[in-house]
Amino acid sequence: MARTSAVRPEEIRRHNLGLLLGEIHRRGELTRAELTTLLGLNRSTIGGLVSDLVSLGMVTEYVPAGRDRAGRPSYVVAPRPDGPYVLAVEIDVERIVSAAVGLGGTVHARRETPIEGDGRTPDAVTGQIACDADWIAGRLPASSVLIGVGVSVPGTVGRENGVIEHGPNLEWRGVPLADLLSARLGAQLDVQVGNDADLGALAEHLRGAAVGLDNVIFVNGSVGVGGGIIADGNQLRGVGGYAGEIGHIMLNPDGPPCHCGSNGCIETYIGEHALLRAAGIDRHGPEEVAGVFASAQQGDRRAVAAVHTVATWLGRTLATLVNVFNPQAIIVGGSLAEVLRLERATIEREIDARAMSASRSSVQVLTPGLGVESSLIGASELAFQSMLAAPDLFPVAIELAQSRV
Amino acid sequence: MARTSAVRPEEIRRHNLGLLLGEIHRRGELTRAELTTLLGLNRSTIGGLVSDLVSLGMVTEYVPAGRDRAGRPSYVVAPRPDGPYVLAVEIDVERIVSAAVGLGGTVHARRETPIEGDGRTPDAVTGQIACDADWIAGRLPASSVLIGVGVSVPGTVGRENGVIEHGPNLEWRGVPLADLLSARLGAQLDVQVGNDADLGALAEHLRGAAVGLDNVIFVNGSVGVGGGIIADGNQLRGVGGYAGEIGHIMLNPDGPPCHCGSNGCIETYIGEHALLRAAGIDRHGPEEVAGVFASAQQGDRRAVAAVHTVATWLGRTLATLVNVFNPQAIIVGGSLAEVLRLERATIEREIDARAMSASRSSVQVLTPGLGVESSLIGASELAFQSMLAAPDLFPVAIELAQSRV
Repeated sequence: MARTSAVRPEEIRRHNLGLLLGEIHRRGELTRAELTTLLGLNRSTIGGLVSDLVSLGMVTEYVPAGRDRAGRPSYVVAPRPDGPYVLAVEIDVERIVSAAVGLGGTVHARRETPIEGDGRTPDAVTGQIACDADWIAGRLPASSVLIGVGVSVPGTVGRENGVIEHGPNLEWRGVPLADLLSARLGAQLDVQVGNDADLGALAEHLRGAAVGLDNVIFVNGSVGVGGGIIADGNQLRGVGGYAGEIGHIMLNPDGPPCHCGSNGCIETYIGEHALLRAAGIDRHGPEEVAGVFASAQQGDRRAVAAVHTVATWLGRTLATLVNVFNPQAIIVGGSLAEVLRLERATIEREIDARAMSASRSSVQVLTPGLGVESSLIGASELAFQSMLAAPDLFPVAIELAQSRV
Repeated sequence: MARTSAVRPEEIRRHNLGLLLGEIHRRGELTRAELTTLLGLNRSTIGGLVSDLVSLGMVTEYVPAGRDRAGRPSYVVAPRPDGPYVLAVEIDVERIVSAAVGLGGTVHARRETPIEGDGRTPDAVTGQIACDADWIAGRLPASSVLIGVGVSVPGTVGRENGVIEHGPNLEWRGVPLADLLSARLGAQLDVQVGNDADLGALAEHLRGAAVGLDNVIFVNGSVGVGGGIIADGNQLRGVGGYAGEIGHIMLNPDGPPCHCGSNGCIETYIGEHALLRAAGIDRHGPEEVAGVFASAQQGDRRAVAAVHTVATWLGRTLATLVNVFNPQAIIVGGSLAEVLRLERATIEREIDARAMSASRSSVQVLTPGLGVESSLIGASELAFQSMLAAPDLFPVAIELAQSRV
């Protein structure tokens, strides 16, 4: 991955500072010796970088107790438990989950609020998030400082501006969510907004089922079907931030109408509405979907057939993704994870029959390592990105944030 | 795009040297003042880097004649016409094209050889390329030095090893082309092999219709249909190098059988065989395909309908690509470029009807800026990559290459 700009010597320290903090953040506590090996820098450089991070209030150093006193002790560097934290928020159709997440990925406090009807307007949702943020801040040590906010949304999100271009199930169009939330939480606070499938992919790549894998697809399937794609370690975003709409790969030009305006999109074959329709159920909701899976497990003929049909189309979809992306892993999340659990053989058989052999042989199909929390954890990682890129810039941001929230 | 390794000060000079040579390579001659602005480095650093490249025999400097003598002259830095060159090769089903390409993208010599029947074996093809390389070397100044070879192949290519995993129309499987060519041309010579669509995308991005655009898809459609994808400036490769097989997106599980083993792949709807079948023509070859286009232009009813049908499916395919990748441009090459010329309105109408609006509004559909040479030029760029990453390492490589070819 070639950098396309010139490197100036003064950038090196910042780059290396961010790299060291990133290792601590992802791996948890590490000895100085381990950091030396991981970063390929010498001991004194590592010592200097660690001192900087200690002064910034981000990490703490200690000599492990009970250690053999004969050798030179290797200091352990750990995230400070009362150090900076981010607010991670997952907006779903039925609920809002908010959590304070510290360096190292530790969840310090968490709150879940159901929403319905009127509560789904942008105004009501941002109001609720502000309440939850206050509630959470009250449960943390006084020295903890909020350094950023990351929000996961079931919709397409503009790349630089945090505008929800379209969230079909929230019925949002052109909602400037980042700006609305900044106005509620403090104008100086960095608010980042991402698509739920993109953030699921990010989290599974950094902390879940795809750690160490650089070519990964996260398929997030519930009412809608979205995809988050990591290619050579980088998130596939597209020019405007709208890439990954794998639910809108066209299968059949004369197929069922799709909310996107086209017909026969993959979503109309593997989304929850297709499952419920195949099972002969008219109402649409999480309970009904759970009911179909429960009936299928109990051997109900119609439910079994419905899950089988969705699994067949899911396998065909995954074969297409294997051919287009040649990934190491496809992680199937949302309610489609249950389809994978119930009908893995059907899905694998379709991939075997339809994916090109070279790409087929290197892909695994997995359920999420982070359970149903992938998008929430992804939101926290999104919020940490600015600080991990330039830790030395954050004392300023810290004071501003502290005065507002 | 975060670097994931630590930066050492000694790497900076190499990085900046490569960056400067890259600018000269892509933009042609530049004044020192322009280089200062482009790289954001000071005059003396630029002066030092240029001196290094002059000593390496890669560039030359001169004061432009007829220039106003009042001001301080700004030296012009230009690629050396007798400097290092690469051998770019495009292997096609019907012919081999070989060219000597210098820094700046100048084609110094070029040879085209038809192949057929027995001539398509890996042994025959590599033998022919070795002959062409000798013929070409004989037409260049004695001081010109071959620094690498880039080869474009219509097939899937292993990412690190230059093995043709599958080239259906050459009937190649598991052909270690890079190794075979090294054995013919000189074991120390760097031979890089790429998929034709990937290299088409690379060339159009660097020198063709997509200069300045970082999210681009090159659709290469002839007998087979492949895709080369540039996402945020980086080539999408997949873990093994097999990404981009957009011809094998499944449309219809009960559709026509495909050589890949599946049914109803996009290739079976928009590949040349589909066009010929729709036009009622039994023989398969470039002349027959050209004949259908000529008949369509003359208003032959059946040919017009055949092109229209392929255009309709091509538009639907592009809508899927718009939804999945959110690119700024899709470049349609191969014989599909002619379908685009004849039936653009049909294609754009399908994209309008089926792509999601936010992504639709930012995409242009283009014909190649490099005509039919995209993959050949891409092969030359592939061959230049090692030298552009570390120009200072190349005097050694130069001497080795010189002694062999």
